[in-house]
Amino acid sequence: MTTGVTAPLGFRAAAVAAGIKPDRLDLALLVADHPCAAAGVFTTNLVQAAPILVSREHLGGGRARAVVVNAGCANAATGAAGLDDAREMAAVAALAVGCPVEEVVVASTGVIGVRLPMEKVRAGIVEAAARLEPGSGADAARAIMTTDTKPKEVAVEFRVGEATAVVGGMAKGAGMIAPSMATMLAFFTTDVAVERSLLERALREAVGESLNRITVDGDTSTNDCAVVLASGARPGAAIEREGSAFDAFRRALAEAASQLARMLVRDGEGVTRIAEVRVEGARTAAEADRIARTVAESPLVKTALHGGDPNWGRVLAAVGRAGVPLNVGRVSVWIGDVHVAEGGAAREYDERVAAAAMQEDPVRLRVRLGEGDATGWMWTSDLSHGYVDINAHYRS
Amino acid sequence: MTTGVTAPLGFRAAAVAAGIKPDRLDLALLVADHPCAAAGVFTTNLVQAAPILVSREHLGGGRARAVVVNAGCANAATGAAGLDDAREMAAVAALAVGCPVEEVVVASTGVIGVRLPMEKVRAGIVEAAARLEPGSGADAARAIMTTDTKPKEVAVEFRVGEATAVVGGMAKGAGMIAPSMATMLAFFTTDVAVERSLLERALREAVGESLNRITVDGDTSTNDCAVVLASGARPGAAIEREGSAFDAFRRALAEAASQLARMLVRDGEGVTRIAEVRVEGARTAAEADRIARTVAESPLVKTALHGGDPNWGRVLAAVGRAGVPLNVGRVSVWIGDVHVAEGGAAREYDERVAAAAMQEDPVRLRVRLGEGDATGWMWTSDLSHGYVDINAHYRS
Repeated sequence: MTTGVTAPLGFRAAAVAAGIKPDRLDLALLVADHPCAAAGVFTTNLVQAAPILVSREHLGGGRARAVVVNAGCANAATGAAGLDDAREMAAVAALAVGCPVEEVVVASTGVIGVRLPMEKVRAGIVEAAARLEPGSGADAARAIMTTDTKPKEVAVEFRVGEATAVVGGMAKGAGMIAPSMATMLAFFTTDVAVERSLLERALREAVGESLNRITVDGDTSTNDCAVVLASGARPGAAIEREGSAFDAFRRALAEAASQLARMLVRDGEGVTRIAEVRVEGARTAAEADRIARTVAESPLVKTALHGGDPNWGRVLAAVGRAGVPLNVGRVSVWIGDVHVAEGGAAREYDERVAAAAMQEDPVRLRVRLGEGDATGWMWTSDLSHGYVDINAHYRS
Repeated sequence: MTTGVTAPLGFRAAAVAAGIKPDRLDLALLVADHPCAAAGVFTTNLVQAAPILVSREHLGGGRARAVVVNAGCANAATGAAGLDDAREMAAVAALAVGCPVEEVVVASTGVIGVRLPMEKVRAGIVEAAARLEPGSGADAARAIMTTDTKPKEVAVEFRVGEATAVVGGMAKGAGMIAPSMATMLAFFTTDVAVERSLLERALREAVGESLNRITVDGDTSTNDCAVVLASGARPGAAIEREGSAFDAFRRALAEAASQLARMLVRDGEGVTRIAEVRVEGARTAAEADRIARTVAESPLVKTALHGGDPNWGRVLAAVGRAGVPLNVGRVSVWIGDVHVAEGGAAREYDERVAAAAMQEDPVRLRVRLGEGDATGWMWTSDLSHGYVDINAHYRS
């Protein structure tokens, strides 16, 4: 099976080197053969890039035909002129594809505060529209990369009645990755027809349990978005109400989002090791998530992870400063299967076994609070020299 | 003028290599000739080290005669046995000095989750008590270091009537430094007599405007504390009520705390550059502080600082995710004196001048919100390879 956004029936894609970045693919166009049901979720940052504003407006209609994405420039903090640029980007794509401008989703990723080189963007879109092919999803996944070291694509099959349908997806993002739209950019396609409100619900659920639970550096981007398009090109596979077909689609979309989320955190800037932080026994899921997030974002936990040092005291210290009231005397900590702390204090354990647990993939850090029954979790990465190198001179 | 905790009259100190860390000073004893008025402020982390619990209890009486501090082991997350160890540390110091155990302040810093080697601690305290000298403040400042590269001492003179009195201080702390007791450990002495509630008020004020406004990594320690002892050994210099003498003392203590805070952030783990983040035009000081803190703790801002890259988009993005409601269209950003963004968008500016502003010491990052009149600020450091190196293998 092919993978990526063109794996489902009814989609074509193209990628071009528009010259926004030097000598590499930097503009992707994804086009459905016919208008699709579509839904999106967007960054919670109050500073929202121009393409976010435009795409949110366009997706308000619940339909989309095309997605145009550039790398190299985020078109964020660019004011009214930047908004005009994003609208023009959509208009040029609409003209090239032959659809209403409201059916075009726009996304940009790259440096903040710099205007798009519109002449290059225009020419790039026109060139891409002339090259659309059903097998070009892989090129599109490559064109949306910034500091990513590899493209991220996925395809998940599921059954709808007698038919086998597909969810495809691609994502990019390596830094500025944090909860509350951790995606940077993620695009999903499917060849079933899905009723719009169900499509939106399935996307929110899928993102909440995947892309919103990864963190590389705790910074939320101005440009994050996740979008899904349902072409309905697969014969005999339409989902109009809740039921087993919708459940199969939901599971497939959640699995696709989960796979992309894992790829994102693993390809995070400078990442050499990843960890799952699980918090159990909280009073509420929100409190469990808050503690998991504090542990997952702690620079001291992340550097210990980098060094493979089972320094559970840093996990406990992060739990204590998460802002959630709790009785420290009830807290237990595990590294992998090694129970290292109990009652808020050190336990006897074999240091070599704990050190070995820091070499697992992913490393499993588990905290039990003893306050209630709620759980929460996050995926995180280590903090390495590579992260510093990449971000110290990102613009130069 | 000599500097440090023995600069004021009425104090002696000693430092010994007790063997808690290999071959270096690791235990400090500070003793007043007579019982002092004393006050302390402690970490807000729910995980509180045993010495924090003991010192908070002892300082409840408002008097202290001695402070005993060890480096190399935090005596945190050590349960009931660790609490016994901290109490015994105080008891041994009380016996050696000849004062009630309630007049001993205990502090520990180092690895979490490991018991104190009590045999070494006991012998070290006895040895230190035999070596107390009025000029040994510098040794004490050296003995409390962990990953600090240099000792941190201060002395500030002030006038009380006809007399010139002194505030002295020492501090340690290089990682796990974050607001809400950013100090790690800070100890102040003065030779004026200060009424207890005034002493406590002056300490809270001084810490709130200095040590609580620095961040190296956003991690709040389990062992942070700041303590002040007022010996009253200076003739003719007693402060029993508000007035000009109290104001002079307050200013001196605030200045001492401020100087130590700057030394702490400058000597933060791996730090090569520091910055002041100032937020103006907020509705409330708490909102201004929250935004300043979010910018100051952003790994992307800190790595840009490391690279000397005037990447103000990262500052704006951090403002947008701070959780404070605001109109982004009113936000301005300055780097040094260069006005780089206005109305939430890029302004025309000279990139070379902005780059030069990133070489200032400290770098000045300023944000104006346009929501009200309140201001807030933080001091922060860059995020470098050195931080990663130090923390990846701290225990090994």
